[in-house]
Amino acid sequence: MAYPPEDLLGKLAERLGPKGFTRDAGDMAPWLTDWRGRYRGAAAAMLSPATREEVAHIVSLCAAEGVALVPQGGNTGMVGGATPPPDGSALILSTRRMNRIRSLSAGDNLAVAEAGVILATLHESALAAGRRFPLTLGAKGSATVGGLVSTNAGGTQVLRFGTMRSLVAGVEAVLPDGSVHDGLAALKKDNRGYDLNQLLIGAEGTLGIVTAAILRLVPAVAARAVAWIGVESPRDALALLRAMEAKTDAVESFEIVPARALEMVLEHIPGTRAPLEGAHSWHVLVEAVAEEAPAALLERLLGQALESGLAKDAVIAASEAQAEAFWRIRDSIAEAERAHGPAVQHDISVPVADMPRFMIEGAAEAEARFPGTEAVAFGHLGDGNVHFHLRAPAGADRALWYAEDAPRITRLVHDMVVAAGGSISAEHGIGQLKRDELARLTPPARLAAMRAIKQALDPTGIMNPGKLVPDQDGPST
Amino acid sequence: MAYPPEDLLGKLAERLGPKGFTRDAGDMAPWLTDWRGRYRGAAAAMLSPATREEVAHIVSLCAAEGVALVPQGGNTGMVGGATPPPDGSALILSTRRMNRIRSLSAGDNLAVAEAGVILATLHESALAAGRRFPLTLGAKGSATVGGLVSTNAGGTQVLRFGTMRSLVAGVEAVLPDGSVHDGLAALKKDNRGYDLNQLLIGAEGTLGIVTAAILRLVPAVAARAVAWIGVESPRDALALLRAMEAKTDAVESFEIVPARALEMVLEHIPGTRAPLEGAHSWHVLVEAVAEEAPAALLERLLGQALESGLAKDAVIAASEAQAEAFWRIRDSIAEAERAHGPAVQHDISVPVADMPRFMIEGAAEAEARFPGTEAVAFGHLGDGNVHFHLRAPAGADRALWYAEDAPRITRLVHDMVVAAGGSISAEHGIGQLKRDELARLTPPARLAAMRAIKQALDPTGIMNPGKLVPDQDGPST
Repeated sequence: MAYPPEDLLGKLAERLGPKGFTRDAGDMAPWLTDWRGRYRGAAAAMLSPATREEVAHIVSLCAAEGVALVPQGGNTGMVGGATPPPDGSALILSTRRMNRIRSLSAGDNLAVAEAGVILATLHESALAAGRRFPLTLGAKGSATVGGLVSTNAGGTQVLRFGTMRSLVAGVEAVLPDGSVHDGLAALKKDNRGYDLNQLLIGAEGTLGIVTAAILRLVPAVAARAVAWIGVESPRDALALLRAMEAKTDAVESFEIVPARALEMVLEHIPGTRAPLEGAHSWHVLVEAVAEEAPAALLERLLGQALESGLAKDAVIAASEAQAEAFWRIRDSIAEAERAHGPAVQHDISVPVADMPRFMIEGAAEAEARFPGTEAVAFGHLGDGNVHFHLRAPAGADRALWYAEDAPRITRLVHDMVVAAGGSISAEHGIGQLKRDELARLTPPARLAAMRAIKQALDPTGIMNPGKLVPDQDGPST
Repeated sequence: MAYPPEDLLGKLAERLGPKGFTRDAGDMAPWLTDWRGRYRGAAAAMLSPATREEVAHIVSLCAAEGVALVPQGGNTGMVGGATPPPDGSALILSTRRMNRIRSLSAGDNLAVAEAGVILATLHESALAAGRRFPLTLGAKGSATVGGLVSTNAGGTQVLRFGTMRSLVAGVEAVLPDGSVHDGLAALKKDNRGYDLNQLLIGAEGTLGIVTAAILRLVPAVAARAVAWIGVESPRDALALLRAMEAKTDAVESFEIVPARALEMVLEHIPGTRAPLEGAHSWHVLVEAVAEEAPAALLERLLGQALESGLAKDAVIAASEAQAEAFWRIRDSIAEAERAHGPAVQHDISVPVADMPRFMIEGAAEAEARFPGTEAVAFGHLGDGNVHFHLRAPAGADRALWYAEDAPRITRLVHDMVVAAGGSISAEHGIGQLKRDELARLTPPARLAAMRAIKQALDPTGIMNPGKLVPDQDGPST
């Protein structure tokens, strides 16, 4: 890629003004690294356009000069997808100033939000209109609509309402030649050929810069009930979910937690306590949302499950505070793990029906191949998506383990996932982190199609280069 | 395109055997024209592979020779998308022998069906397992899964469950170079880059040949209730739908019928009678499906609507026979229209909220510009998709009117649709019929992106040439 010439930077500075253009090292510093601190980049300038027209202007100028752009929202990604390359050849394009909710209609259950709108802000705006945007995740206070669209974000409520892909009714984006794709019409039926909206969702900014999206809303939460359940195995947990789903569509979260993860949380996170008295090998956190009496619904369903033996014990949160306490256990697993010692994480999915087997056999296989490690698989069982972590053996040298064992463990886990017909990236994306693994594990036909699409829509390669699409000539370094 | 050389045909005949290969004019005749009889093509042979491997073999051979393939399922399309070109340069590839349902899991609510499975067969198989495939349309006895996927089919139940796009969990397809894309894993979360499945849905066979799909199932219909309602205007009809949706998600169909259409049906279709005694300007057909007592639900909701004045009169079908009679009126509109005289049809969509305005103002505008014509807009109001027809003036010369007035009316209707941010093809697709209109009315950025994707994935142009993607150099003839 070409380095940004001074006269290009001058033109950009003039057009964008001081709010939209900075070369100040201090201003840029937080945006040159990903939040996990795995990647560190460099950039001659950070551009913060306020409008779609400004984005189109930037892209046109950069396309003419062959200068790369790295789109960035809240910079909360997990795979280095928004970190510029270290050689300083790219400019950062931050969407954060495009932060208007252009419209929100409770009647139509639709909102048009610009790329820089923060997820929590969208939640509040929807709520104020008696509606809900039913996707949430830990980074909701920073993550932006543009990033959520571009990574097809998931989270803890995918079970009922799906990932971003099913919540996005249309996308507005600036394409790599500076032209604008306006897909905001929100047509429920539109058969005019290839669906560019769908192509831009999850493209991690490699095919264009999402400037706005039209998003589906659902009724606000009337009432919720949260239960903590002890079960014997992932198989029983899935059977429990299926039994509940056969009776109701009110189940919005169904998270599985192994005994080891619960113990870790109780040990490391102050103020947590076990929801159930007895010991169970596996636990499930269920949240049901309904117009009327979700607690009574859960009680009825869990009563049947206790009778049939699918559930060994269960407690329904008696208060909002107790519900929050249950969720806090689930949400603290990663933090407890960090306090516990070195571990390597994998965000993987397999077909839902196969997940119980995978959790047991995959863990056994990994532990056998890497003696002393402990596998902890937890998370979104109903989505076929668990976070599959392996903890280092007690006393392992941290640096050595991360440098030598962790990559080998990751290869093993990914190989097992591919053998099960699964995905090495369920919800975090590919970015820089998994690009080589994607190259290694993707069938040639699919890889060729991805490269052809990238080349067709971004022939000069200025859109977030080095991310997602594996290079033609083998692994990057 | 190259004409199929004799030695290629010989190789294909040998590989496919007599069941999979024919050059017999009589055998091929029904497949050389579309069912509306608008297009007539020619082909040197019709290929009917029985397996994905045979499809891959055919595509590889044809790619090497630059010979075009026209994929065909039930041949029930409305836009000539499956009719080969008249010059005989293409071969027909029929998917009808690939007609296995490879698996159907009630627990997972998923079925893997090959491209040639007929929709009605899929309905029956799902039902036998206590499930339902919730998409249906008039041609269900002939339309195949491959065609439904490739045209992103809609129908009368889109309101609740969406079009094919939201019912397809994954696609298996042979790409234009003969490689196989296997997207059948049905992962609920999978963020490994560009979504080829989504790109193949609705591509009308121009990017590859769909050989199978994994499809979502829903619970079988427990009970349904059907009501016929008189309303004052499309605006009131939409308000009624919104009011119902705020109370329940059981509404699966919401079809609007103008007085003119009802009169036409009563006049031309024997055995039909008006569901309500009084006269109403507009009518709505509602179907609700629920676990328990859908009729009581409709009664409650309609009671409120009658009180508030949104509904002027309403009757709930007292029996399954009466429900069928209500549906027969809706389903006979097109037939009644044909009996009535010349008319020109448009399958269009606009944003749902704007549809009531469009139906009134668009009809008035068209009738004013073409004196003596009568506009009849009916269908899927809740999807923002109506069938917008204009009937010729009484006494008009049929041939002359179709040749001269109809195309001008269509241009006007399409211009109005585009001005409203809508789609000139809501559910029927583009095929041959609307390719020039697509070229005329699509923004250059989108058109360029479509052409680039087609060129990238099918560089030799062998996949259903002349369909969907407008030529670079202006209108086709």
